[in-house]
Amino acid sequence: MNKVVTFGEIMLRLSTERHLRFSQAKTYTATYGGGEFNVAVSLANYGVPAEFVTRIPDNDIGQCARGEMIKRKVMNDNVVLGGQRLGIYFLETGAGTRGSKVVYDRANSSMAEITEGMIDWEKVFEGATLFHWSGVTPAISQTAADVCLEGLKVAKRKGITISSDLNYRSKLWNYGKTPSEIMPQLLAYSDIILGDLDTAFFMLGKEKIKPNYNDLTTLPKLYEQLFTLVPNLKTVATTLRYSVSASHQQIGGVLYSDKQLYTAEVRDVTPVVDRVGSGDAFMGGLLYGLLNEQFDLQQSLNFAVAACCLKHTIYGDYNLCTVEEVDNMAKGNLTGKVLR
Amino acid sequence: MNKVVTFGEIMLRLSTERHLRFSQAKTYTATYGGGEFNVAVSLANYGVPAEFVTRIPDNDIGQCARGEMIKRKVMNDNVVLGGQRLGIYFLETGAGTRGSKVVYDRANSSMAEITEGMIDWEKVFEGATLFHWSGVTPAISQTAADVCLEGLKVAKRKGITISSDLNYRSKLWNYGKTPSEIMPQLLAYSDIILGDLDTAFFMLGKEKIKPNYNDLTTLPKLYEQLFTLVPNLKTVATTLRYSVSASHQQIGGVLYSDKQLYTAEVRDVTPVVDRVGSGDAFMGGLLYGLLNEQFDLQQSLNFAVAACCLKHTIYGDYNLCTVEEVDNMAKGNLTGKVLR
Amino acid sequence: MNKVVTFGEIMLRLSTERHLRFSQAKTYTATYGGGEFNVAVSLANYGVPAEFVTRIPDNDIGQCARGEMIKRKVMNDNVVLGGQRLGIYFLETGAGTRGSKVVYDRANSSMAEITEGMIDWEKVFEGATLFHWSGVTPAISQTAADVCLEGLKVAKRKGITISSDLNYRSKLWNYGKTPSEIMPQLLAYSDIILGDLDTAFFMLGKEKIKPNYNDLTTLPKLYEQLFTLVPNLKTVATTLRYSVSASHQQIGGVLYSDKQLYTAEVRDVTPVVDRVGSGDAFMGGLLYGLLNEQFDLQQSLNFAVAACCLKHTIYGDYNLCTVEEVDNMAKGNLTGKVLR
Amino acid sequence: MNKVVTFGEIMLRLSTERHLRFSQAKTYTATYGGGEFNVAVSLANYGVPAEFVTRIPDNDIGQCARGEMIKRKVMNDNVVLGGQRLGIYFLETGAGTRGSKVVYDRANSSMAEITEGMIDWEKVFEGATLFHWSGVTPAISQTAADVCLEGLKVAKRKGITISSDLNYRSKLWNYGKTPSEIMPQLLAYSDIILGDLDTAFFMLGKEKIKPNYNDLTTLPKLYEQLFTLVPNLKTVATTLRYSVSASHQQIGGVLYSDKQLYTAEVRDVTPVVDRVGSGDAFMGGLLYGLLNEQFDLQQSLNFAVAACCLKHTIYGDYNLCTVEEVDNMAKGNLTGKVLR
Amino acid sequence: MNKVVTFGEIMLRLSTERHLRFSQAKTYTATYGGGEFNVAVSLANYGVPAEFVTRIPDNDIGQCARGEMIKRKVMNDNVVLGGQRLGIYFLETGAGTRGSKVVYDRANSSMAEITEGMIDWEKVFEGATLFHWSGVTPAISQTAADVCLEGLKVAKRKGITISSDLNYRSKLWNYGKTPSEIMPQLLAYSDIILGDLDTAFFMLGKEKIKPNYNDLTTLPKLYEQLFTLVPNLKTVATTLRYSVSASHQQIGGVLYSDKQLYTAEVRDVTPVVDRVGSGDAFMGGLLYGLLNEQFDLQQSLNFAVAACCLKHTIYGDYNLCTVEEVDNMAKGNLTGKVLR
Amino acid sequence: MNKVVTFGEIMLRLSTERHLRFSQAKTYTATYGGGEFNVAVSLANYGVPAEFVTRIPDNDIGQCARGEMIKRKVMNDNVVLGGQRLGIYFLETGAGTRGSKVVYDRANSSMAEITEGMIDWEKVFEGATLFHWSGVTPAISQTAADVCLEGLKVAKRKGITISSDLNYRSKLWNYGKTPSEIMPQLLAYSDIILGDLDTAFFMLGKEKIKPNYNDLTTLPKLYEQLFTLVPNLKTVATTLRYSVSASHQQIGGVLYSDKQLYTAEVRDVTPVVDRVGSGDAFMGGLLYGLLNEQFDLQQSLNFAVAACCLKHTIYGDYNLCTVEEVDNMAKGNLTGKVLR
Repeated sequence: MNKVVTFGEIMLRLSTERHLRFSQAKTYTATYGGGEFNVAVSLANYGVPAEFVTRIPDNDIGQCARGEMIKRKVMNDNVVLGGQRLGIYFLETGAGTRGSKVVYDRANSSMAEITEGMIDWEKVFEGATLFHWSGVTPAISQTAADVCLEGLKVAKRKGITISSDLNYRSKLWNYGKTPSEIMPQLLAYSDIILGDLDTAFFMLGKEKIKPNYNDLTTLPKLYEQLFTLVPNLKTVATTLRYSVSASHQQIGGVLYSDKQLYTAEVRDVTPVVDRVGSGDAFMGGLLYGLLNEQFDLQQSLNFAVAACCLKHTIYGDYNLCTVEEVDNMAKGNLTGKVLR
Repeated sequence: MNKVVTFGEIMLRLSTERHLRFSQAKTYTATYGGGEFNVAVSLANYGVPAEFVTRIPDNDIGQCARGEMIKRKVMNDNVVLGGQRLGIYFLETGAGTRGSKVVYDRANSSMAEITEGMIDWEKVFEGATLFHWSGVTPAISQTAADVCLEGLKVAKRKGITISSDLNYRSKLWNYGKTPSEIMPQLLAYSDIILGDLDTAFFMLGKEKIKPNYNDLTTLPKLYEQLFTLVPNLKTVATTLRYSVSASHQQIGGVLYSDKQLYTAEVRDVTPVVDRVGSGDAFMGGLLYGLLNEQFDLQQSLNFAVAACCLKHTIYGDYNLCTVEEVDNMAKGNLTGKVLR
Repeated sequence: MNKVVTFGEIMLRLSTERHLRFSQAKTYTATYGGGEFNVAVSLANYGVPAEFVTRIPDNDIGQCARGEMIKRKVMNDNVVLGGQRLGIYFLETGAGTRGSKVVYDRANSSMAEITEGMIDWEKVFEGATLFHWSGVTPAISQTAADVCLEGLKVAKRKGITISSDLNYRSKLWNYGKTPSEIMPQLLAYSDIILGDLDTAFFMLGKEKIKPNYNDLTTLPKLYEQLFTLVPNLKTVATTLRYSVSASHQQIGGVLYSDKQLYTAEVRDVTPVVDRVGSGDAFMGGLLYGLLNEQFDLQQSLNFAVAACCLKHTIYGDYNLCTVEEVDNMAKGNLTGKVLR
Repeated sequence: MNKVVTFGEIMLRLSTERHLRFSQAKTYTATYGGGEFNVAVSLANYGVPAEFVTRIPDNDIGQCARGEMIKRKVMNDNVVLGGQRLGIYFLETGAGTRGSKVVYDRANSSMAEITEGMIDWEKVFEGATLFHWSGVTPAISQTAADVCLEGLKVAKRKGITISSDLNYRSKLWNYGKTPSEIMPQLLAYSDIILGDLDTAFFMLGKEKIKPNYNDLTTLPKLYEQLFTLVPNLKTVATTLRYSVSASHQQIGGVLYSDKQLYTAEVRDVTPVVDRVGSGDAFMGGLLYGLLNEQFDLQQSLNFAVAACCLKHTIYGDYNLCTVEEVDNMAKGNLTGKVLR
Repeated sequence: MNKVVTFGEIMLRLSTERHLRFSQAKTYTATYGGGEFNVAVSLANYGVPAEFVTRIPDNDIGQCARGEMIKRKVMNDNVVLGGQRLGIYFLETGAGTRGSKVVYDRANSSMAEITEGMIDWEKVFEGATLFHWSGVTPAISQTAADVCLEGLKVAKRKGITISSDLNYRSKLWNYGKTPSEIMPQLLAYSDIILGDLDTAFFMLGKEKIKPNYNDLTTLPKLYEQLFTLVPNLKTVATTLRYSVSASHQQIGGVLYSDKQLYTAEVRDVTPVVDRVGSGDAFMGGLLYGLLNEQFDLQQSLNFAVAACCLKHTIYGDYNLCTVEEVDNMAKGNLTGKVLR
Repeated sequence: MNKVVTFGEIMLRLSTERHLRFSQAKTYTATYGGGEFNVAVSLANYGVPAEFVTRIPDNDIGQCARGEMIKRKVMNDNVVLGGQRLGIYFLETGAGTRGSKVVYDRANSSMAEITEGMIDWEKVFEGATLFHWSGVTPAISQTAADVCLEGLKVAKRKGITISSDLNYRSKLWNYGKTPSEIMPQLLAYSDIILGDLDTAFFMLGKEKIKPNYNDLTTLPKLYEQLFTLVPNLKTVATTLRYSVSASHQQIGGVLYSDKQLYTAEVRDVTPVVDRVGSGDAFMGGLLYGLLNEQFDLQQSLNFAVAACCLKHTIYGDYNLCTVEEVDNMAKGNLTGKVLR
């Protein structure tokens, strides 16, 4: 099978344990993650050859991050060594009415200081069928945005399908540019977009819209507008997420392609073990479906939503469920019986 | 008070912590359990003299299992030493829509390799009033099934009440026999049976039935059929269990005796701390009621359901609640207030 | 800003971990708390100068308790050293239908053996605007009750507002006096009372009443009776608490002042991380509102209820949420979204 | 075999982990112990029937202490329930040049408030061959000292061998009496004494002596003096202990009986996992030897020293080594090879 | 570089924590190891392509073992799935005079039930330069011994260097054969042997010898005898190990080749973090040296001894030190300074 | 008492547990430290008013660092908020022959980006008697060096004693300047210097010297040279440290003042719980002695060496021993007996 390439930052995540607040924590649990890496892990876990491209420091902490790639069977031959530090994010896990809290410590990371020419994109895309990136990377620095563009150009030239996750984070974008200055030219390469319609319009620099996901008949018109803005676009999808509390989420999904709207049933997810990376689990599930000839679009969306739901039950940033487990849930088995 | 004897396997249980998947676990929490041992612990905890009969290896791990019997005040004078290993089961604890997962590693255990003559059943049953066994033991090996039969014969001869838990596990029964080849002659000794009607019919080699527990008026006819198949049978009971998710169960119960059907109110159990052994907690509660002259059948069933519900809040395989605590809940106090 | 003084006992709390029963616990998590100290922490956390007055032993364990005061920025210059031991309470954390369980080990604590003259109340109240105490202190010993009265007299003479939390604990009051023999003369100094109407009447030695909090129109009459019994009383408030299970609480609140009844919306709190001290969090929130000129009474009550709800998500005895976090929830944001 | 009875206090021990100081500790490891209980565990572990007599509170913490007796196979039928609390001691584990630190919190414990008549000594001593007590019990309260005397009288009348461990703790003896006012009449019953010569003389109210354990020829004269002070005395023994650092001890032993002095080789013990209770391990080993017809006095002393050394490698208050393990070391195997 | 192939069993190791005895342990730390796998990890860690061949069950526990191979960059393409269970060993970690204790639970493991024909040795040895096996594999079952022979024949035919670790374990060899019935024909293929001279003679069925490693001049004669027994033998080496206590080892080494005897300085290793697998670390270091053209035999031996010493400081079964770290120590830097 | 001011960086320290290597760690223990902060904690712990001046980010991680200052009673009123991140260092704790390893992640920290004018030095030095800084601060950035100089000038002008710790770290000094370009003008203000003679000469840009600390008679000449280079210098001191292994250190000390050389006995420190910050503990002890009128210079040195030794037994960066404990050891009590 041809490989999927994802490109982005991998960070050390330091979480407080058992819902402790930062001021109570004496130990941090160390895991590793990042939107695009999480997608690669999902795919590798489903048996899809997946490669992650990034830049990490040449020290023990960088090696720990690489150890995660190896352990999770994500190809990493084109990871570049250099720079001063691995990005970190601190996570205080909420519960009930108290939301989780993230403190980013990713400034001046090896990935933020990546520059054009560091990555051999020609080599990266040998044998690749799909390139996945997200809006987090251009949000961290101008040079990271430049390297995104560099990669997208090579991918497009080589006829590789391009999948873009909008992934808007307001706490980033601190280097003096706004999304609408940077994202339009990057998103222009997309075959697939994951994200809300309003975020897409915002990033493309269009006037603000308020899509009504409760009235599905209103969506096709907006999706068609989006398709006119992104010439190669074939598929757009988004999770629908209702947050009852930090411990109780409701998850559904919408996909639009070929003038057809698909929706997946909204499911209750409670309790939430860990919601970070659940969007990436959706994306990983969606790509698995789209790449799999035995899945039609409805099945792909169902699989993506099931993957997203199951991710909430798994500690850490990425989904570790097998195809069989996700499939089982996509087909409606929600009862969580003991398998014995 | 006369003692209750239970016979079966005790295993080392190794559970991942905090909902981690097997591939994430670096430590396992070690507890000990097994269906029939769990029933003995429940009874001992209620103050009923309870003895557990089994075979364990003569090494440190076997001694740890014995230590649990001692700690939980379960008599163990007739435990036989020998064989190569204590059976193990690995438990990955699920949450929400992801069910728990059990990996058995019990092949060639000391108990699986038990043979007739190893247990001095005459001595075991001195001063006993009830003998409890379950369908797990004959499922692990032909010789274990033989020893069950050996014990049942002596118990019956001595006029001891016999209680059978059907406990069907499809992952067992690997030694070349089906339940219907083995179970009918064993179940024939039962005074009390715990389990679903359909499992009972299946194990007795009868044609498949689909009892409708939602329409209680349909049940007596089926129970009467069961009573004709098991000549000494006096009481049949079963938990009713609706699994909303791995973290949310609904528990009720049905008991049939003397042509009378008893039901207990269905209760919500959420969150689930540990559901393994909740059926054994029901059985322990039921036997406590049946042995207790101050309990009528309805009270016994209520007590069993309350014990089953409370077990879900306790880590490990067995119920550690006191008579007072179970009774309090059986009488409808579900609010979980702080006792101070 | 003028300081708030609270007076009471601080105890070492030893909790079992992960819902383990006492008989399963091999380690205890050590935190520190006590009703009046918890109120001081809440206020200090909101930026209000708060001082805690108590008596602790002059040993390492007493110093640990003092370390908590320091860490939580609670002034402690008038803490008295002496006596034999710090009071302890053991906590078994329940779940679902199994309630938490407290074992007190506070007899003969340094605070129980405090006597009149040990505290320099004149010095304590320099620069103070409010004095908060609760019904727990006079419940532990006659001398502790005497010291309460001693303090109340000085506070009143100095014109300091007095806030009383009824805090009735039936397991205390073991020294030969009943609440109605002790509390009336202490409560007589109150400007603010926190607690149920029935508890208030009981402590004041009046005949038993059964206020109907579901029919709010019945309350003003009772409150007015209470105002006649306590001459300086200006404000009475109470949490309304519905315990669905140990893991699911519903929290509202009622406040009566100036012949006006205020109520706050009842909110679901699930899962409960730790409910101990949630009443103190209410009190801390209420005092913050009452002391804050920008809050009217309705806002104060809303803030108190929000603080109480959020406390349930925080491990340990006291609320560690900021004004901003509580305010955010008081204004209706309950969704627990990730802040990133 | 006839049973050994030991009498004393069992406490909850709360230790900081991994050499943390009290001010750094967030959790405590809970174990249970007390000099006389530790001796009973040693004996039970060697297969000697051992009973422990004490008074514990009728609450969950008391039940945990009893659970330890049960788990360690120490008979406990004559344990008396009552009083307010289980004694506690806090332990900060030192390392190298920093010694361990104990904070006692045992005032007003159930055992300290025991009074004459509470224990049915006649019943206790049925089938007993030896009674062991120590100087800690009369040090905690006058009534505890009274109960010691009460027991010693019954034991002596029944012809039971009496073994006394001097166990002087300067932090105790706070109730207004000095050892020399209390101990002489208690020690007068001794057949066996464990302890230093100087402590023995001090407790018996004699003038201070300074025995020179480095010149063994000087000891017999002093021992003979001791024998004249305690009429029934047959055997005196003591550990010789050189503390190089908290992590490195050197352990030997001396025994005097029948005008003969026996010494055991001094052994290095490093690192020290836990030194609390190592004297009790010596005593347990010594009694095992004295009660065992196959051991002569030199073997008994060697066994006692080996038990003491091995105890230092075991976490908690008591020695969990088997006869075979202690014997192996007593015969000189110190190499700590992997047994596989 | 050509790859090294090692063949043997990988087991789940379950260790008690912080020197706890089995009867005290509530959790086990899970790691994975086995003599030949440990050698492969050492080599992979030094940058040598290393492949491990074994048989593991097709379940979650087998997958965890495979995850370790992946994480440690050991090639595993020829690992065979099948059988019932992964072998387990339980480890109680000793300290000082108390040795560690191993309880094997490896009967009926997937590897013990391997049979000829399951492994495609032709494929395994493509591109291989060295084949390493040890005496543990033929010790577990006749069929495992058969598969060893099968592999050795193919390796020899293909001209691959063969390295044999004697690894005698008296607790194994339970299937009815003695080492001298099985090992001679297997060892006959050796180019390199690791182990004591006496073990070698014993396994080859020769009369018992007692080599005197303290008088090195006596060794060459014995080594020459060994060379006559094993026709292709070129190099023999052994660790010299003096066990002062479980926490203090002294480690040296001897190598004989080409009629030349090499020795390495004996070094103190204290404290011992984990001594399991230290012999495998020696072997891994030795092979690294022998395969490395820049190392002469003395350097190889020094590197092997340094690797063995450093392994004692690392938790788990295998050495995780880099070439640079081992080299640094081999050159005499023992001071353990902080690298910063 | 007048206060001591220390100025430098406080970092989050993330340590692997139980000697695990980075690649094995799943959790990090979080503590806080930094050379100059550690000195402040030592002094505060001895009862000396100590203030720490630094710059930390205005986020939760910065607040945790501040929480440590508060908890350890270090004044922090002049701490400046701002910048992006708190510096971090990762620590892998070695054992025996494997040294500990530090990975710095302190680039672009709030402190590294401090600039002149941010600190109100006039306010800082109100009521100060001594100003302590170290060579780490000018090593992290040019602006940090500038702020050091800025502070030194104000301190000197106000007649405050200046104490300088050379603290050379070769991994720092990355911003394009060498120590000899920066340090001479800073060190020129010193009244007290802590550090090796060779480091002092190197930092002052003088030719390399090799002081022979084994021949004390050679030292005065070198010290006198140093005094000529630093005009106000009155006292120079250094630890003497012999690293037997990561777990065994030998610690002594030398002090030169007023043409007089003082030395302290070398002591064995084994096992080492945590050696980071032991130099700061020496400095804290030395300053305590120098500021204390009851200590002469020899006593001050002894106290400093004892503090340094004891620090090795305490987890984390700073010494938590009391004056009494250090004094006890300075007077020669090294036996680590249990205090009870």
